[in-house]
Amino acid sequence: MPARWESPINEELRMVEEEIRRSVFSQQRLLTEISMHVIGSGGKRIRPGVAILAFKAVGGTDTSKIVGMAAAFELIHSATLIHDDINDGGKMRRGRVSAFRKFGVQRALVAGDFLFVKGFQLGGPQDRRVVNYLADACTNVAESEILQEYHVRDPRTPIDSYLKIIEGKTAKPIEAGAKVGAFIGGGTSKQVEALGRYGLNLGLAFQITDDILDIVGSEATLGKPKGMDFFDGTPTLPLILAMNDGVDRKRISTLFRKKKKTPGEIREALRLLSRLDALESAREYAREFSDKAIQRLGPIPPSTYRDSLQTLARAVVERDS
Amino acid sequence: MPARWESPINEELRMVEEEIRRSVFSQQRLLTEISMHVIGSGGKRIRPGVAILAFKAVGGTDTSKIVGMAAAFELIHSATLIHDDINDGGKMRRGRVSAFRKFGVQRALVAGDFLFVKGFQLGGPQDRRVVNYLADACTNVAESEILQEYHVRDPRTPIDSYLKIIEGKTAKPIEAGAKVGAFIGGGTSKQVEALGRYGLNLGLAFQITDDILDIVGSEATLGKPKGMDFFDGTPTLPLILAMNDGVDRKRISTLFRKKKKTPGEIREALRLLSRLDALESAREYAREFSDKAIQRLGPIPPSTYRDSLQTLARAVVERDS
Repeated sequence: MPARWESPINEELRMVEEEIRRSVFSQQRLLTEISMHVIGSGGKRIRPGVAILAFKAVGGTDTSKIVGMAAAFELIHSATLIHDDINDGGKMRRGRVSAFRKFGVQRALVAGDFLFVKGFQLGGPQDRRVVNYLADACTNVAESEILQEYHVRDPRTPIDSYLKIIEGKTAKPIEAGAKVGAFIGGGTSKQVEALGRYGLNLGLAFQITDDILDIVGSEATLGKPKGMDFFDGTPTLPLILAMNDGVDRKRISTLFRKKKKTPGEIREALRLLSRLDALESAREYAREFSDKAIQRLGPIPPSTYRDSLQTLARAVVERDS
Repeated sequence: MPARWESPINEELRMVEEEIRRSVFSQQRLLTEISMHVIGSGGKRIRPGVAILAFKAVGGTDTSKIVGMAAAFELIHSATLIHDDINDGGKMRRGRVSAFRKFGVQRALVAGDFLFVKGFQLGGPQDRRVVNYLADACTNVAESEILQEYHVRDPRTPIDSYLKIIEGKTAKPIEAGAKVGAFIGGGTSKQVEALGRYGLNLGLAFQITDDILDIVGSEATLGKPKGMDFFDGTPTLPLILAMNDGVDRKRISTLFRKKKKTPGEIREALRLLSRLDALESAREYAREFSDKAIQRLGPIPPSTYRDSLQTLARAVVERDS
């Protein structure tokens, strides 16, 4: 991402990395290895980052209170990535071969469970409200997985359904991180709520951008092949828009519906998609959510942390990887 | 199981069932359905039972404090059953077709994650010590899965390795339930420790008996086909003993090593196994652990709950399903 939103919390993010490494240590070295294969491949750390920034932005000072929770969010996120890849047959992740392809389905499944447990162990011993934020977000992720399945290869997926899916899958966990950070940092309930809404909108902007990059991104910077959503029949916003409007909508829909798609068909679809207005409309959606996220920062007093949250909201829609 | 160990806590176990039903309610009805397919098929509820009995045995009175935790143990246990069946290709479970076969791997995987989350949500907002008991037990389960894999189809698996595997897989979670129950019930640290050791030994006795029943049990009462451990190449105690001693050890080992085994070979192995001393030796192990469990109840004052723990320890080795 272009701007350095992490700068004011570099030290805290370093502590999160340490906490993660400590957490995934296991007598069974293979569990540590699989965990670090996924976590150590350099994700963007948006979840822990938002939690820490929210904590700091409301005046939280005792960093030790938030580092464990921030790590918990990243551990649980990594668990869902591993299980997701098993379910989608995702071959690449962050420039590396996915865990189940490298280590086998059985071991990857167990490693995912292991990371869930480690996340909850860090996030567990807390106020009931905090545990509920964390657990409800995880519940939303699972529910979205089920909901998403109902719309596989459906060109007529309503945009509302798409938004509900990515809300559960991506936005709610970031919302939860923001709320937990603000709550532990001693924010007022208005601030907790505001930062929660910030996180939710940030997450929506982030995921829409991800879905656009799946079409126009560079495979080298993405670290995975392009067109995977199209290949899997996952109805993302740019795809839904393209299949509802424009001269090529019928051809794209026909290809999208196919259970087996050839590499040539994927290339054809990506070529058709890249010249459509749909991409620009999808970008417009992402920018709107990004703007909304920034607007939600109203009740937060000025600080470098607030600035950083703003920078992050801009950066997620302007990135190319 | 023969004796009614549940009698003094029937009411509490009913509350656990209610708590479980409440927990697995989801907007995505499929998640509730998959969850109840597994949980509602009538497991023995040993994990919540031990937690409640330990709570009561040390004088715990406010039942509301333990019911949620007891449900958490059963939810997490069910999550691991679903994921285990995916990993082992387990076709039947408690007389029902396994979740992944009925609902597909993807949905079953997500439902397992869902149950993990729900378990931790109930077990989470607690003292750090309680969360650590729960999480460490779950970590042990994951580590055992990895350890078990190293010994698949190995007739020379040391008995110590077998014991370590079942300790992590079955005994540690029951130990954790007992410790959590005793801790929340206000037991002294000596009592918490004693009930923990009770749970650990009970778990070992339980799993060894399970492994014996896989050879000699009746498929109708087991609710699943016999000989699955042999088929999967899982080195259980009766199998290890049979492959180390007795006239048929070589033939059994040869069959055990085979990656693909025909139904005829399974039948042959079960026939050979059923006439060996190995089964009786394995029963002897189970009885010893059961005795040890009962001995550990020393520091617990007499009560119907203590009696019940004793009855349970006897029942787990005398059962036929």
